[in-house]
Amino acid sequence: MRDFHMPQLLPQIHSPADLHHLSDDQLAVLTAEIRDELVRVLTTRSAHFASNLGVVELCLALHLTFDFSKDRLIWDTGHQIYPHKLITGRYERFQSIRTKGGLMGFPNPNESPYDLFCTGHAGASVSTISGLKAGDDLLGHADHKAVAVIGDGALPCGMVFEAFNNIHGLNQNVLVVLNDNQMGICPRTGGLAKQLDRYRMTEFYQDGKRAINDLLKAIPLIGEPARASLEALRDAAKKYFKDGGLFEEFGFRYFGPVDGHDLKGLRKILKDLKGQKGPLLLHIFTNKGHGVQQAADDPVTFHSPGIFEDVGEGNTNIVVKKGAGRAYTDAASAAIYNALKADPKACVLTAAMCQGNKLEKVRADLPKQFFDTGICESHAVAFAAGMAKAGARPIVDIYSTFLQRSFDNIFQEVCLQNLPVVFMLDRAGVVGPDGPTHHGCFDIPYMRLFPNMTCLAPADEADLEPMLQWALRQSGPVSIRYPRANAETLPRSSQHQPIERGRAEILLDGDDGCFLAFGTTATACVAAAKNLREDGLNFGVISARFVKPLDTTTVLGAIENLPLVVTVEEGTLEGGFGSAVLEAANAAGLDTRHVVRKGYPDRFIEHADRNELLADMGLDVKGLTAFVRGLRGQGADRSLQSAGVR
Amino acid sequence: MRDFHMPQLLPQIHSPADLHHLSDDQLAVLTAEIRDELVRVLTTRSAHFASNLGVVELCLALHLTFDFSKDRLIWDTGHQIYPHKLITGRYERFQSIRTKGGLMGFPNPNESPYDLFCTGHAGASVSTISGLKAGDDLLGHADHKAVAVIGDGALPCGMVFEAFNNIHGLNQNVLVVLNDNQMGICPRTGGLAKQLDRYRMTEFYQDGKRAINDLLKAIPLIGEPARASLEALRDAAKKYFKDGGLFEEFGFRYFGPVDGHDLKGLRKILKDLKGQKGPLLLHIFTNKGHGVQQAADDPVTFHSPGIFEDVGEGNTNIVVKKGAGRAYTDAASAAIYNALKADPKACVLTAAMCQGNKLEKVRADLPKQFFDTGICESHAVAFAAGMAKAGARPIVDIYSTFLQRSFDNIFQEVCLQNLPVVFMLDRAGVVGPDGPTHHGCFDIPYMRLFPNMTCLAPADEADLEPMLQWALRQSGPVSIRYPRANAETLPRSSQHQPIERGRAEILLDGDDGCFLAFGTTATACVAAAKNLREDGLNFGVISARFVKPLDTTTVLGAIENLPLVVTVEEGTLEGGFGSAVLEAANAAGLDTRHVVRKGYPDRFIEHADRNELLADMGLDVKGLTAFVRGLRGQGADRSLQSAGVR
Repeated sequence: MRDFHMPQLLPQIHSPADLHHLSDDQLAVLTAEIRDELVRVLTTRSAHFASNLGVVELCLALHLTFDFSKDRLIWDTGHQIYPHKLITGRYERFQSIRTKGGLMGFPNPNESPYDLFCTGHAGASVSTISGLKAGDDLLGHADHKAVAVIGDGALPCGMVFEAFNNIHGLNQNVLVVLNDNQMGICPRTGGLAKQLDRYRMTEFYQDGKRAINDLLKAIPLIGEPARASLEALRDAAKKYFKDGGLFEEFGFRYFGPVDGHDLKGLRKILKDLKGQKGPLLLHIFTNKGHGVQQAADDPVTFHSPGIFEDVGEGNTNIVVKKGAGRAYTDAASAAIYNALKADPKACVLTAAMCQGNKLEKVRADLPKQFFDTGICESHAVAFAAGMAKAGARPIVDIYSTFLQRSFDNIFQEVCLQNLPVVFMLDRAGVVGPDGPTHHGCFDIPYMRLFPNMTCLAPADEADLEPMLQWALRQSGPVSIRYPRANAETLPRSSQHQPIERGRAEILLDGDDGCFLAFGTTATACVAAAKNLREDGLNFGVISARFVKPLDTTTVLGAIENLPLVVTVEEGTLEGGFGSAVLEAANAAGLDTRHVVRKGYPDRFIEHADRNELLADMGLDVKGLTAFVRGLRGQGADRSLQSAGVR
Repeated sequence: MRDFHMPQLLPQIHSPADLHHLSDDQLAVLTAEIRDELVRVLTTRSAHFASNLGVVELCLALHLTFDFSKDRLIWDTGHQIYPHKLITGRYERFQSIRTKGGLMGFPNPNESPYDLFCTGHAGASVSTISGLKAGDDLLGHADHKAVAVIGDGALPCGMVFEAFNNIHGLNQNVLVVLNDNQMGICPRTGGLAKQLDRYRMTEFYQDGKRAINDLLKAIPLIGEPARASLEALRDAAKKYFKDGGLFEEFGFRYFGPVDGHDLKGLRKILKDLKGQKGPLLLHIFTNKGHGVQQAADDPVTFHSPGIFEDVGEGNTNIVVKKGAGRAYTDAASAAIYNALKADPKACVLTAAMCQGNKLEKVRADLPKQFFDTGICESHAVAFAAGMAKAGARPIVDIYSTFLQRSFDNIFQEVCLQNLPVVFMLDRAGVVGPDGPTHHGCFDIPYMRLFPNMTCLAPADEADLEPMLQWALRQSGPVSIRYPRANAETLPRSSQHQPIERGRAEILLDGDDGCFLAFGTTATACVAAAKNLREDGLNFGVISARFVKPLDTTTVLGAIENLPLVVTVEEGTLEGGFGSAVLEAANAAGLDTRHVVRKGYPDRFIEHADRNELLADMGLDVKGLTAFVRGLRGQGADRSLQSAGVR
C-alpha cells in the first residue's frame, strides 16, 4: 500500500488568501500535497480524477492572481473543481466528497461562496461568466474581474460560440482560459480539435510574436498612424503565425499556448492579462492525469475510474477495480452492436460518451456506423434526423439528463417530421454520486410531451434488446429509458412476452392490488409483491413497458378491478408516468382514489449512492413493501378507505 | 390599386426541370413574376416578405445548378421558402399560403418532396444537411449533393457551430450558402455581425484573390513542392485579405462574398462549387426586400408585415395596415418598461425578437438594461442566470416555442441554482398562420417540470403587470405565459385580487359547476359561463393563475363541492395544467370523475387563424358552451352520471 504522508501545508490553507504567504518552493510542495489528496479519494470511491490532476497549477495560479471573494470564476462543467475545493476551506471535509451528506463532486454554492454555480453539464461557463460580468457592470461593480475555465472537450458546445459572439458584441472584459488537454472524456472528434492542435504546433513562433508585442509595449506614446501600422504589423504577424485565429475571429485577443503546469509562467501571464481590457482568451496546455503516471498514460480510464484496488509507492501499481456485474449500459451497447451488425443502414450516435455508453467495440468494429459528435447534443439529434430522412436508422445514445440539451431538436427535427430516430436514454433515474446535474429525472414527462413520440422502458434486461429491435422497425421516433444500474432479469411465470405497441406485460397476477411499474422499478416491485404475499396480500405487478401509448386496456382494467394500484416510476411525478395513468383513467371516466403514485419528489435530488437515494425515496423493495403495508394498516384513514385496501 | 399582370412564365414552371428551358432574359422576367406573386400575397394577409424577396435569384440559381429531386437542399429556418415553393409545383396553390388548408408558410414535406424538413426554428439546417449527407453516404448515395442556405441572422445559433465542427471532422462534401443580408428580423447584434461586415469590406481584394486562384488553376500539373508553395502563397494572401477567416478556422473553404442578386454570377460560382470536395462556404450578399423599394428601405417592418392596405403602381405607396387593437405583447412590453424604469437592477433579454416582443422603446430609452443576444436562446438563459447571480433582476422575454432551445439551461443554470430569473413566455398557445413550429403548445408541462420554478398565466390584461411586479419580488425563477392575442380585461364582480403565491382568483361564482381556467382562456370561459346561465346552469369560472404551485384550497374545494369541473388550458394535455389538477386531486384522495380536461390534442396543430384553430379544438366560447351543454344533455352517458351534471 502506498504510504499517505499527512500533508503539511494543505491543512493551513483555509482560504485562497493563505496561498499568498507561501514561497515558490512551498507552492511546489502544495501541488504535490493536492495530488496526494486526489489519489487518496480514489482509493475509496469512484471520482473524477485525471482532469483534476491536470488543473492543480492553473487553480493555484488563478487564486494567486485574482481575488475570487469578489472576482468571478466559473469552472466549466465542474468536474475539475477538486483542487479549488481543497483551497477554499473544504480540505477537512474533502475525503467526504461524493458520499451522502459529504461534499459534492461538482461546484456547489451551498458549500462555499467560491462556487458560484452548481453545474455538471458542459459548455455553459462562458455564458454565465458573461452574465455575471454584465450583472456586475449593471450594479456598479465593473471592477470585478471575470474568468471562465473551459476544457477543449466542452469547447465545441454550441452555446460557447453563442457566448463568444455576445461577449464580442458587448466588448466585455472577460478572460476565458482554454484548458487544452487534447481530450474530452474520450479523445476528441471534430474539426476544432484539429484546429487546436494546429495552434499547438505554432509554439515555435511564440518568441517572434512576443518580440512584436514587446516592441508595441515598449513605445509608450506614439502617434496614431504609427500605432496603426504597428498593430497592422502585429495582426499580419499573428495571421502568419496562424495562432488562435478562431478566437480572434470571435473578437477575442488570443494568448498562448502556454504550459499549464508551469505555475510561475501561468502567474506571470495571468497577472499581465488581469490588467487588460476586452475579451481575452488564454490557451494553456495541460496533461490530463499530470503527476500520476498511469493516469497521464491512460486518461480515458482515469477520467472517472472505479475504486483503486491498491496504490503503491510512486504510483506504480494502481489497479482500478472492475465494476461489479453487467450494467444496463452493457446490455444496451450489446444490443446496439447486434442491431448495427444486422442492418448496415443502422448507426449509433454518441455525444462524447463513447466510454460512458460503452460503445468502444462498436467504434472499433463498425466505424462507418459510429458517430461521435462531441458534446453537441443539439447537433447530434438534428444530425440523426437528417440521417433518418435519408433512409438510415440512427440510434441516439445519450444520457437522459444531457439529452435535455436537445429538447427543441427532438421537437422540431424529429417529432414534427415523425422520423424514425431511436433514443437510447441511458442513466435515466438517479445515477448516484454525480448528483443533481446528472440524475435523469425528467425524461418521462419531456419525452411523452411531443406528438408522434413512442416512449418505452424495459422492466429488465430481457426486455431491452427486444425493445431496441422493435423500435428499429417503427416508422416514427421511439425512446427507451434505462437506469445506471446492474442489469437484472426477472423470473416470469410465463414466457417473455414479445414487444407490441402499447402493450403492457403482466409480471405477477394478484387480485388484492398491484404495482404498475414503468421500467426497471419492476424489479423492486416484484420483490415487494412477494413480501406482501407473506402478509396474505395477493399483490400483482404490471410492467407498463409503454408510457406512450399507454396500454389502456391493461392499465384501466387494473384500475377498474383492483382495490389498489400503485404506480412506480423512476422520475419526477410532475407530468410523469403516474400522471399519464391518471390522465387515461380520467379520460375513461374512472375513479382513481385507489391509485397512488410513487416517484421522485419535486425537489432536486442530492448526491449519494443510487441505492441510498432510492431507499430515501421509498422506491426500493423495503420502501415499497412498507408503503403498501402502511396503507393497509391505517384502515381508518380516508385515503385508505377510498383506496379500498382490505 | 396596383395592376397585377397575369404572370406568363411562372404558370409553366411545374418543377425545377422546367427552368432549364428558359433563356437568361426569360429568367429575368421570371424573377420579376415571382416578386409580383409575393407582393400579391401580402395584399390579403400577413406573411414573411422581405426575406423572400431577397432570395429569388439564389433560389433559381440553386435549382438550375443542382437536381434537388435527389440532391439535398435545406433552407434554414424556412421563412424564405416562398420562391422555392413557386417553382416546385405549388404556383397554382400559392395564393392559399398561410390560410387554413392552404400551403404552409414554411417548408412542408407533406406538400412536396422538394421540402425535406418542416422547420421554423433557426439554426438547424447545417446539422440536418450534414445528417442527410451522412445518411446518403451510408446508403451508397455519395453522389447526392448537399446544400444548406442559412441567413446571417441564424448564423450565431450555437448548433450551427456544432455542425461546422462535425462537418469538418467528417470532411463532408457539404456546401453552406451564407445568405448575408445584414439583418436578422431586427438588425443583428453580437460580434459575428461585425466580422461578416469586415469580410464584406474586403470585396475590393477579390480580384487579387481571384488572380491567385486562377494562377493555381492555370497550372494543370505541377510538382508537389511547387504546389505546396503556391498554396502557401494563396493561404497567406487569404489571411492578408482577411476574408472568411472564421469559416476557414472551422475547416470550410470560403468563397465570396458575391452579389446574391446576380443570377448569372451565382450560377457560375455554384457550378464551380458543385464539383469541389470537402466543406465549402459560399458567402453571398443580398438585400432583404430586393425589388420592392419600400421593403428594401425598411426590412424590419417588411420582415413579416401586416396586410397591405393599398398597393400602387411601381410599389410606390404600400401601406401596412396596423394590427387591430392592443395585444398581450404590448401589455407585456409596457409592463417590462415600467419595471425597468422602477428598478435600475432590472433588465430584459430578447433573442433577436426586439420587434416581435415590442421592446423597441425599451431599447431606445433604457439601452443599459436591454440585451439582445441574437437567436441564441441557450446563451440568453444562462447569461440571465449569471446576471441574476450578480444581483440583477433579468427578465427573459422569449416566445414559448423558441424557449424550448433553453430547456437544459432553465434546468441547470436557473432552477438548480434557484435564481430569480423571470420568464415572459410570449406566444404561448396557438399563434395562427405560422403553424406548428411556432405554436406555443408545450410550455405548461415543460416549465412546471423543474423544482423551484413558479408558473403563472394571467387571465387578462389586468393580471399581467401585477404578475410581473410580483415575479420580480420573488427569490427564485418565475414564468408568466400569455398568448399572441388581443389583450382583454374581464369584468370582475369584486376588485381585482392582488397576486399571491399559489392563489387562484374566482372570477364568477356558481354552484352547478365551473370552468377552471389557466391563462387567458378565462375570457372564453366567462362568456361560456354566461351562456350557460341562460340555460339555467349556474356555472362559475376560476382563474387558476398558478399551475405551480397550484392553489389546492380553491381547486380541490371546487372538485369537492361542485358536480362538474372543466379545466381549460391553451396547451397540450400531456402533463399540462389539467394533469396538475388531477395530480393534486389524486394526492388529496379525491374522486375526479367529474373533472374534465380541455386543451390541445396530442398531435401537431396545423396553421390557420388563431380563432379558427381555437374553434376547431372547442376552446372558444361556442365550443366550451356546447361542450357543457352536451354533457348535460346526454344524461344517460356513464361519464355524465359520474360527472354528476344535473
